[in-house]
Amino acid sequence: MSEHYGKVALIGLGLIASSMAWAMKRAGMATEIRGYARSAETRETARRLGFCDVICDSAEDAVADADLVVLATPVGVMGRVAETIAPHLKPGATVTDVGSVKRTVIEEVSPYLPETVHFVPAHPMAGTEHSGPDAGFASLFDNRWCLIVPVENAPEDAVARLERYWQALGANTERMDPEHHDLVCAVVSHIPHLIAYTMVGVADDLSRVSDQEVIKFSAAGFRDFTRIAASDPTMWRDVFLTNKGATLEILGRFTEELFALQRAIRTGDGEQLHAYFTRTRAIRRGILQAGQDTDKPDFGRIEVKR
Amino acid sequence: MSEHYGKVALIGLGLIASSMAWAMKRAGMATEIRGYARSAETRETARRLGFCDVICDSAEDAVADADLVVLATPVGVMGRVAETIAPHLKPGATVTDVGSVKRTVIEEVSPYLPETVHFVPAHPMAGTEHSGPDAGFASLFDNRWCLIVPVENAPEDAVARLERYWQALGANTERMDPEHHDLVCAVVSHIPHLIAYTMVGVADDLSRVSDQEVIKFSAAGFRDFTRIAASDPTMWRDVFLTNKGATLEILGRFTEELFALQRAIRTGDGEQLHAYFTRTRAIRRGILQAGQDTDKPDFGRIEVKR
Repeated sequence: MSEHYGKVALIGLGLIASSMAWAMKRAGMATEIRGYARSAETRETARRLGFCDVICDSAEDAVADADLVVLATPVGVMGRVAETIAPHLKPGATVTDVGSVKRTVIEEVSPYLPETVHFVPAHPMAGTEHSGPDAGFASLFDNRWCLIVPVENAPEDAVARLERYWQALGANTERMDPEHHDLVCAVVSHIPHLIAYTMVGVADDLSRVSDQEVIKFSAAGFRDFTRIAASDPTMWRDVFLTNKGATLEILGRFTEELFALQRAIRTGDGEQLHAYFTRTRAIRRGILQAGQDTDKPDFGRIEVKR
Repeated sequence: MSEHYGKVALIGLGLIASSMAWAMKRAGMATEIRGYARSAETRETARRLGFCDVICDSAEDAVADADLVVLATPVGVMGRVAETIAPHLKPGATVTDVGSVKRTVIEEVSPYLPETVHFVPAHPMAGTEHSGPDAGFASLFDNRWCLIVPVENAPEDAVARLERYWQALGANTERMDPEHHDLVCAVVSHIPHLIAYTMVGVADDLSRVSDQEVIKFSAAGFRDFTRIAASDPTMWRDVFLTNKGATLEILGRFTEELFALQRAIRTGDGEQLHAYFTRTRAIRRGILQAGQDTDKPDFGRIEVKR
């Protein structure tokens, strides 16, 4: 089966869906792209931007006749969306999602889907701190990873087809089981986001350090946290509510380590601090070698001229 | 008095000192720059790069006859450096430093300095994740802040002169008292770094999530932490040991907030999470408006093309 699905329906029209539409156009990957968003304002913006061929006023309309249906809403409402669209799905269609959490999504979506469709959950690990239909662009997934998380007994050809689809959109793909996916994402994404939100909240709260000072002097490290903490609040609320187990586990590990460092500061144990700070450098080198970041100082925000 | 000091001595030749040398050359700000570093290898690299006019084999040699002496070592050794150079300082010279912590540095350096010199502590809030003499470049301080932290009874003209010096190197300046400086820096820099180090350490530790996965999927948020956590371990060890009070205070606030969010996750309090994640967006907007970061998605690491 070709990675070209023909008619594609996007449910939810935020950063990820609009980027998928632009990337499909770039790759000539769809005969027709239909889109739906709950908010009339989002639909209007999407119509104006033109990344879909048709913007529908109901999810049912969007999915009727679609060969690929993409759930691109916050993960907390995917179950309800599945319930709504289920009776209207075309037999033989593939249903996928782009949620950052997989076990809960599978539990909540699967029961509604008829046996005549294939459900292949996926998670493109790409994004920016911007959200909404006007934030999307074609190259968002280039050289990023899309994790494919097949449900039990999923037909191999349906899974492989979605992999090729994501590769055509620019991504690398890898298969993972739902539990492992949710743990990996808690480590590399969910807890870093929670920590960034917390740090920004602490700074916001401190009355002795004015907002203006926090903003003026942000380049000293804090700035990167504020970018992460500027992401979509609804999406992130849903991530933590639906990936509770893994996030609480990693959070426990995190505070355990943090308390060890706090104790080293309190007792003046410079050796422990130095050893810890040295060890973490190696991971950074790995990321640069893997091409997942640039080695330019400060991400090239400053120009190096001597 | 002109912001041009004439002869400048740099003690310590890492990222900050080498950038100061390049920036002084760019601005025509010194008649002669003399440099000293404890490590022979660093001195050799500095000689090769040529950002100083003379590289001396002792700190005493470097400071003799200097009009401005810059302590640019890790803060933990500044007291010892001050003790070593004190007998060799030229009467009327200004001694400054570039340490990230001010109260402890003032306490440790001041007692050694003769009354014939002016001590004007400063803290250029600029840097990258790279360290060493080959990491420096002339524009590092452009549009960044340099905090000037005068000691008690410091003569106004000596303080104002150092301000003009830093402005000539490209920085904006602001005066602050030592306690407030150390608190502000704990919030915008020290604790963000500690948290980033901790998160990277947690990821490194987790045996179920392999290093390879952490590296492959780092773009999902974790990557920014690894950049911060790639900074110089000696410098950061000294920061935490010498800014113990403020870092422990902010750390306490941080864990208090983190536990509140952890509880919201555990109890499924979506409203609290959403409210928290919404509030932190405002700070990001302030940083962009203040010109302290770029609004390009992902810091311009990805090119937006539709």
